[in-house]
Amino acid sequence: MLCCTGLLVCEWREPEELATLLDLELRENGEQQHQLLQRVRDVAKYSVKTNHPRFFNQLFAGVDYHALTGRFLTEALNTSQYTYEVAPVFVLMEDEVLSKLRSLVGWAQGDGIFCPGGTVSNMYAMNLARYRAFPEVKLKGQWALPRLAVFTSQESHYSVMKAAAFQGIGTENVFKVKVDDRGCMITDDLSEKIELAKSQGAVPFLVHATSGTTVQGAFDPLEPIADICDRQGLWMHVDAAWGGSVLFSKEHRHLMRGVERADSVTWNPHKMMLTGLQCSAILLKDTTDLLKRCHSADATYLFQQDKFYDMSLDTGDKSIQCGRKVDCLKLWLMWKAVGSQGLEERVDRAFAHTRYLVEKMKKREGFQLIGKQPEFVNVCFWFIPASLRGKENSPDYQDRLSKVAPVIKERMIKQGTMMVGYQPQGGRVNFFRMIVISPQLSYKDMTFFLDEIERLGNNL
Amino acid sequence: MLCCTGLLVCEWREPEELATLLDLELRENGEQQHQLLQRVRDVAKYSVKTNHPRFFNQLFAGVDYHALTGRFLTEALNTSQYTYEVAPVFVLMEDEVLSKLRSLVGWAQGDGIFCPGGTVSNMYAMNLARYRAFPEVKLKGQWALPRLAVFTSQESHYSVMKAAAFQGIGTENVFKVKVDDRGCMITDDLSEKIELAKSQGAVPFLVHATSGTTVQGAFDPLEPIADICDRQGLWMHVDAAWGGSVLFSKEHRHLMRGVERADSVTWNPHKMMLTGLQCSAILLKDTTDLLKRCHSADATYLFQQDKFYDMSLDTGDKSIQCGRKVDCLKLWLMWKAVGSQGLEERVDRAFAHTRYLVEKMKKREGFQLIGKQPEFVNVCFWFIPASLRGKENSPDYQDRLSKVAPVIKERMIKQGTMMVGYQPQGGRVNFFRMIVISPQLSYKDMTFFLDEIERLGNNL
Repeated sequence: MLCCTGLLVCEWREPEELATLLDLELRENGEQQHQLLQRVRDVAKYSVKTNHPRFFNQLFAGVDYHALTGRFLTEALNTSQYTYEVAPVFVLMEDEVLSKLRSLVGWAQGDGIFCPGGTVSNMYAMNLARYRAFPEVKLKGQWALPRLAVFTSQESHYSVMKAAAFQGIGTENVFKVKVDDRGCMITDDLSEKIELAKSQGAVPFLVHATSGTTVQGAFDPLEPIADICDRQGLWMHVDAAWGGSVLFSKEHRHLMRGVERADSVTWNPHKMMLTGLQCSAILLKDTTDLLKRCHSADATYLFQQDKFYDMSLDTGDKSIQCGRKVDCLKLWLMWKAVGSQGLEERVDRAFAHTRYLVEKMKKREGFQLIGKQPEFVNVCFWFIPASLRGKENSPDYQDRLSKVAPVIKERMIKQGTMMVGYQPQGGRVNFFRMIVISPQLSYKDMTFFLDEIERLGNNL
Repeated sequence: MLCCTGLLVCEWREPEELATLLDLELRENGEQQHQLLQRVRDVAKYSVKTNHPRFFNQLFAGVDYHALTGRFLTEALNTSQYTYEVAPVFVLMEDEVLSKLRSLVGWAQGDGIFCPGGTVSNMYAMNLARYRAFPEVKLKGQWALPRLAVFTSQESHYSVMKAAAFQGIGTENVFKVKVDDRGCMITDDLSEKIELAKSQGAVPFLVHATSGTTVQGAFDPLEPIADICDRQGLWMHVDAAWGGSVLFSKEHRHLMRGVERADSVTWNPHKMMLTGLQCSAILLKDTTDLLKRCHSADATYLFQQDKFYDMSLDTGDKSIQCGRKVDCLKLWLMWKAVGSQGLEERVDRAFAHTRYLVEKMKKREGFQLIGKQPEFVNVCFWFIPASLRGKENSPDYQDRLSKVAPVIKERMIKQGTMMVGYQPQGGRVNFFRMIVISPQLSYKDMTFFLDEIERLGNNL
């Protein structure tokens, strides 16, 4: 199940059929062991094999067996990360892992915490930025504040909008900054948007930059953004959920030049680093205990003030959660196993694979890259079936092209040979986004990928 | 490691010593396999054995091996719950499990989602309540709204305060309603607090009731609370993170009489049902797609509108998260294995164990229960060492009593024989809170518990 290329990536079933096959209903009486074993086999059989080398569909893929061991051990030990009392090993381990991630950002000190996913990490940044600017918000709520304004690029992750809605800031107060062709924030437009917000009476407090956008894998220019944040006194957050792992690589970390000037960074090792869902850190430059001051609720039943050990070890008051899953062990164990060097190699290999794929693609008719060369490991392209080649100027070209990717995708999933995502973006009709991360990926798989897109789409 | 009573519950080490033992540092180079195996053994050795039958410290404990199998399988399959495309089995399974939980609440229809913990589930309720009352908040933020007011009991979980801070409502707008001796909300005071809030110009929108408070395990009276919510047009949320599992039991579900009148319910099967962290559901009576309308961000790269299957199966727009861990499989597999009947027996057994323990406790000198009889499986008590017995009227009695539990706890942890929590609450000085849930628990363990408290505390 875990890595055989002989197996399909998915065994597609229509929802009604799948529900019947799985016999999902929960009943009054329990089942026999042989039935339960069959259920386990069925769950695995009809689930998508995200660790199959031909799964290119999401920003996670592949499997690292050391991390998987850490995940199994986490489940077996079943504890919550909130106090040293109940999670002594993991409180110390989280601190070490976060400190190591921070050092890659360029911070000798700071703070941070693991969160259930990048969106929540980004929400922490928004809440901390608001609290630093207006500490009274915790007690009094947003009414005590002027209307606030957040700035992020048009191609940033939708979690910024989710955060603004959830945290009472309002989605209309997220100002979308223009991007260039590659999807990188145009900083002149950031300055203009800040002035626009001010002219409307809103108070800017947060710039949410992105290192590795979801679709194109673009890196916003952090140095000029930091200059603007400095001048304006704004919290600078870098959403590097996807791109953060370039910091492991001496060759590629320049993509995030200036990140050390940020106030906070979101980084999801469960993406490129293959730790498995979920492993997302919010890292902070702050050394004033802002995280705890912002989120504490001083629950006496959990954080007794007369404990016999150093209560600053209890992380519960840093979190918006109460019970919090242990997310550090899987990353720690994998890191111990392969070293920083092994993680660096993994990043460099993904970039090399991407270059290889792009070169192959350029030589094949019918593959049209978005942009000249991907900045990261997102390879975005249109597949142009033979019937559409050379017809770029015909009036229905865009309309017909927009229908190509969905049909290829449907055929692909129904046959189960591989999985890759597509989407429209801005003025661009549906195009594929292939993600190259899995260390299980071979050159053969990449050739297969190109052949398979042709096979599935050539007659369209 | 998993269930042997011969082993200690914890092997206490001071943080500095533990850090050295674990050699936490992450280095440039990887390690050999034998070193890694030693690390895995050390992590297990120094971690708290939360599945030890003498772990009484939190609202989770014990292990169910079917659930654990589900957790291992979840980790091996490593997918995200957001689309049918990438999680076909789990999208359908989550729907079935949620529907079954809702039917126990008393709802034939409705909505819901699994969240990373009860606090986040409670935050969903707060956001949904706000959005139903003022849909413009999503776009415009809290500034477009009048000052809002939330009502909850003095003994409700601290997540209400965390939610109010995080979501821009403000902690001073949480009105704390008085409780009776058992910790149950006094509904006359709820009515008074609602009038108080109105007199201050705030607009009530949410009553956050509790079924199973954290410390005393109290159940708020849901019927009269529902009457008040009906009359005032308020969203009624029931935080049954801890107590919800009584709904499995024909004998004990009366504790939540009236829950079907609520708008939303938080329920954490990872607590009494032993699914393992995390498994928390927010259940909704709503059938108007409120969850999706409130949380959607319409990300075209994930939720393409030209998919070949029914896109209403994609749950991503219901969630505030993007990637979301699969939390349904562990509960589903356990439920399949033991049936509703097996789960009911588990709940009934915990109540029976609690009664047994309480009867034993009443017969022992030095054990003084808080209240006459626990409503639930939280057994709250003071241990009165011989030196303090009969001295209730001496001026330093409370002060001396307050120091007993911390010392016993310190000795207990350093010897590792068992773990139980303590806290002060309201006017009560430090008392123990023992939680009886583990099916691995025997009468012998309960006798051991009482003996051990005496052994550790009698000379104080």
